[in-house]
Amino acid sequence: MAVSPLLLLLGDRIAEATRSKGPVRAFDELPVHSSDVVIAGFGRVGQIVGRLLLARGVSFTALDADAGQVDTVRRFGLKVFYGDAAHLDLLHAAQLDKAKVFVLAIDDVEASLRTAELVRKHFPHVQIVARARNRFHASRLMDLGIERQIRETLPSSLEMARWTLELLHEPPALAEQLVNRFARHDAEVLARQQAISHDESKLIQSSLEAREELAQVLEEARVAFTRKGRGG
Amino acid sequence: MAVSPLLLLLGDRIAEATRSKGPVRAFDELPVHSSDVVIAGFGRVGQIVGRLLLARGVSFTALDADAGQVDTVRRFGLKVFYGDAAHLDLLHAAQLDKAKVFVLAIDDVEASLRTAELVRKHFPHVQIVARARNRFHASRLMDLGIERQIRETLPSSLEMARWTLELLHEPPALAEQLVNRFARHDAEVLARQQAISHDESKLIQSSLEAREELAQVLEEARVAFTRKGRGG
Repeated sequence: MAVSPLLLLLGDRIAEATRSKGPVRAFDELPVHSSDVVIAGFGRVGQIVGRLLLARGVSFTALDADAGQVDTVRRFGLKVFYGDAAHLDLLHAAQLDKAKVFVLAIDDVEASLRTAELVRKHFPHVQIVARARNRFHASRLMDLGIERQIRETLPSSLEMARWTLELLHEPPALAEQLVNRFARHDAEVLARQQAISHDESKLIQSSLEAREELAQVLEEARVAFTRKGRGG
Repeated sequence: MAVSPLLLLLGDRIAEATRSKGPVRAFDELPVHSSDVVIAGFGRVGQIVGRLLLARGVSFTALDADAGQVDTVRRFGLKVFYGDAAHLDLLHAAQLDKAKVFVLAIDDVEASLRTAELVRKHFPHVQIVARARNRFHASRLMDLGIERQIRETLPSSLEMARWTLELLHEPPALAEQLVNRFARHDAEVLARQQAISHDESKLIQSSLEAREELAQVLEEARVAFTRKGRGG
């Protein structure tokens, strides 16, 4: 059977649309000198960490697996190498063995966890500071013994909640206390739920219980605040 | 020219793969009572704000344009309505005219800005608290007069930077000061760059200048800290 040229063309387009975002160019050569800090993932999070270190005079080696992202960031004068940190040879090339801190700022959960496992196994002396997308991701990072992990949208969400409470005329000092209590309770619940994170029904039950508990925690904070007097 | 059945089949698949994620079911009926707070977008950010309000006894009306997300969140006992906040009739149905605060927690930049414009125009008395994806988004929200906006990954990135500095043996109090200075400078630069945000070459030039300026700001903070003595 003859295949029509139109069909071939269409096939090409489908292939183009569905092609995985694998490397279309070779990974960059890495510098010969080592840095105290290696940053994996140089998007919104990695760039902030990098900019602060740069301004403080701390050198770092940054890697990003997205070639387009690397080119954009370079136009703004930031130094970043195109490469996938989830490859052991690249971590060796980045001289992670000589680094003190590994900043895991990859947004993709699977790639982040693959990288975290590699670093924990092959560079156990390196301290890890990690970005987590959500509770699941945070929980898996904690499974790997990574305590310095932060859910990427949690602090900003808490700030929005604080603004909302203030706009509803809660005293600013109380709004701040409520938000701090919430954050502490949320971290405790996360630690507690880690063991059952694979079981949705248990997780739902635990979340409902945690919610009632939270209401109590916040009510206690409010009563204590009111007793102490505002601004105390 | 006859179209082959295979080509038709292929065409269907392409249409399916590229079809926009429009509503596949009717939007939910909204409650008849009004709330002080309307939350648009009930993903990672909106849920945190909602959970804190709920625990504090503040009622809210939450909307999310992703039907799957709505169903998932409901399984965890949170009340959210399926609907697209970028539609004026839905904002009326949510009784935004009787609300005090509109929490704009939509992650998609375009949908967020469309919604922000609608709210500013039709409900000018309502205070807005907004999530921004990046500098561009934050800048556009500020154009609309929304001052309470926060870049969703900025505070978490700053926390990661603080941890990194501490692991490099900066005194914790200095690390905190450096991060605070960085955040203040970054907000100033954002405000300054707003007028030129459409011009990439000017933006690049401004970013390079801002970087040098930032290094100075942090160096001054460090010198002041050292003079004052650690922990002061």
